[in-house]
Amino acid sequence: MNAAGRPLSIAITTGEPAGVGPELTVAALAKAAARWPSVRFSVLGDRELMAERAGSSPWLSAGAAIEIEHHALSVPVTAGKLNAANGRYVLGLLDTAIDGALSGRFDAIVTAPLQKSTINDAGVPFTGHTEYLAERTHTPRVVMMLAGMGDRPLRVALATTHLPLKDVSAALTVDGIVETLSIIDRDLKALFGLPKPRILVTGLNPHAGENGYLGREEIDVITPALLQARALGIDAPGPYPADTLFQPRYLKDADCVLAMFHDQGLPVLKFATFGEGINITLGLPIIRTSVDHGTALDLVGTGRADPGSLIVAIDTAVAMARHRRAA
Amino acid sequence: MNAAGRPLSIAITTGEPAGVGPELTVAALAKAAARWPSVRFSVLGDRELMAERAGSSPWLSAGAAIEIEHHALSVPVTAGKLNAANGRYVLGLLDTAIDGALSGRFDAIVTAPLQKSTINDAGVPFTGHTEYLAERTHTPRVVMMLAGMGDRPLRVALATTHLPLKDVSAALTVDGIVETLSIIDRDLKALFGLPKPRILVTGLNPHAGENGYLGREEIDVITPALLQARALGIDAPGPYPADTLFQPRYLKDADCVLAMFHDQGLPVLKFATFGEGINITLGLPIIRTSVDHGTALDLVGTGRADPGSLIVAIDTAVAMARHRRAA
Repeated sequence: MNAAGRPLSIAITTGEPAGVGPELTVAALAKAAARWPSVRFSVLGDRELMAERAGSSPWLSAGAAIEIEHHALSVPVTAGKLNAANGRYVLGLLDTAIDGALSGRFDAIVTAPLQKSTINDAGVPFTGHTEYLAERTHTPRVVMMLAGMGDRPLRVALATTHLPLKDVSAALTVDGIVETLSIIDRDLKALFGLPKPRILVTGLNPHAGENGYLGREEIDVITPALLQARALGIDAPGPYPADTLFQPRYLKDADCVLAMFHDQGLPVLKFATFGEGINITLGLPIIRTSVDHGTALDLVGTGRADPGSLIVAIDTAVAMARHRRAA
Repeated sequence: MNAAGRPLSIAITTGEPAGVGPELTVAALAKAAARWPSVRFSVLGDRELMAERAGSSPWLSAGAAIEIEHHALSVPVTAGKLNAANGRYVLGLLDTAIDGALSGRFDAIVTAPLQKSTINDAGVPFTGHTEYLAERTHTPRVVMMLAGMGDRPLRVALATTHLPLKDVSAALTVDGIVETLSIIDRDLKALFGLPKPRILVTGLNPHAGENGYLGREEIDVITPALLQARALGIDAPGPYPADTLFQPRYLKDADCVLAMFHDQGLPVLKFATFGEGINITLGLPIIRTSVDHGTALDLVGTGRADPGSLIVAIDTAVAMARHRRAA
C-alpha cells in the first residue's frame, strides 16, 4: 500500500512517567479511537505503567487501532515522584517519535507533558520540547503557536518565546519577524487548509507605541517587517495594540494573531480556551502538537486531571496530517 | 441637609465634543436615571451640543435628576472633526469636575473619552486623564485598574502603565509595588466594600521567571515586595505566571489581579469584558471612573457607538460613592 493509501499513523509520547501523561493518554485515546476509527495510534511508553494507570479502563480492548509501542522504564515509578533515573526513558520516547516521523512511519506526533528537570538531572541538557525538536530535525527557526478550538479557532503565534522580558526588544529583528510570518503563512496553508491565511500582528509597546511616543520598535522593526512580508504575498496587517486586537470584531477576520512575546499573547489565549488550548510547533519538517499544560504531579491517580487539551492535540494532529496528505 | 443625607451627586464630563462622548452620555443616562432614581447626575458640556446629539431622545424630560451644567463651546463643532480651538473647553469640563469632587459638590466623576491631541494642540501639555487627575489632586501615586462586571467582576490593576516595553523592568521597584498594593488594598476596602481583598500578583517574565532561568525580577523585586506587603496585612499571593493565572480556578478566589505591565493584563481583561470594561483610577482623593475606549470619531452620529462601557462606569461610580458614604 502506498503512503497515500495506508491509514494515518499518529505517535503519542506519554512523557514524564510520574506525571499525568500516561493516564491522560488513556482517557484521550478512549475518545480519539472512537472518533477516528481509521487512524492508527501508537502509544510510546512502558506497557506495565500504562496498564497500571489505565486501571479498569477498557481502552486497549475497545479500539483495535491503538497499540502500545513498549519502551521499558529504567526504574519503577511512584506516581507523583520525579526520578532522574528515568530521564533517558523520557527522552527515548521522544527520539523514537521524531525518528519515526522523519522516516514517514508516523504522520504526526502528539506529546504529553514531560518534566524538564528529570532530563536535565539525568545529565542531558534540555530546555524544552520545542527547542529539542528544532535541534533534532536541524530546523533553524520554528514558531510556537498556541491554539484553542471552540466555535471559531483562536490561534496565537509568538515572535519570541521564553526570554526574560527585558531582552524581548533586542530579540526582535526585521528578518526574524519576516521569517516567522513566512513559516506561519506556509504552515497554515499546508497543514490547516487555509488558502490565504490572515495574520494580525501586534505591536510591542502599549497602544502599539502610539506613533513613537511609547517606544519605537513598531516604527523601526515591526512595520518594516510587515512591509516585506506583504511584498511576499503574506496577508499580515498591523501592528495593532494588543489590548484592542483581541476583540471579536477584529478576531473574526483573522486566522492567527502574531504576538511579540509570551505574556502578551498567551494569557488571553489560555483564558479564551479554558484549558483546552494546545501547542503546535510550526516550521518543522514533521507535524507536532502538544498539550499546553504541565505534568500536574499532584493530580496523578486522582482522576481529576482533565484530558481536554490532549484530546484537542490529537484531533488537531489528525486534521493537520490529513491536510498534508491531501496537499 | 448634611452630606450623608443629601442625594448622591455624580458628574459626567462629556469629553471631546467631536467624538462619541456626548451621544453616549445621552444613551447611558437614559438607563442610569431609571436605575438610580435617587442619584443626581450633572452633565458637564455645551447645552446646544447635547441637545443636537440627543436628537429626538427624550432623556432630559424623562429624568428630573439629570441636569446639564452648561459650558459653552469655544467654536461650533462638526461631528467627527477635531478642532484644537475646543481644547480648553474639554479641559474646562474636567477641571470643573475635579474641583467639584474635591469640594464635595460631586461624590464621583465619570469621564467620557477625550482626544489628547485636541488639548495638546491647544497648547496645554496633556498625557492622559489619569496623569492629569493625579497632578491636579497632588497625588504622588495613582493606580490604573480596569474592571469588567459580568457574573463575577474581573479587575486588573497595573504596576506600570504607559511605558515602552523595554523600560518596564527598570521601572519596577520594591517600594513601588508595595505602594501600589497598599493603594489597591485600601481602595478595594473603602470603595468596593471588600473587607479583605485578595490581590493575585503576576510575575514579570514568562512562567514568572521559572526560578530565575527566565529573568530575575521575580526573585529580586517582586517577591521581596510581596513579603513586605503581606507584613502590612495585605493578601497578595504570587508571583504567578500570567498565562496560568487568568483561569477560572485561580480567578474565582481573587478580587483583583495586579499585572506588571499594560499588555500583560489588558488584552485578557478586554477580551473577557467584551467592550464593557471600565477604567478606575485608584489612590485619588476623589472617585473617578471612565470608559475604556476612545472617541470613535468615525461612529459619531451613526447610532452604532455602544454605551455599554459608560453605563458600567456610571453604575460603578454610584456603587463606589455609596460604599464611601457608608464607611
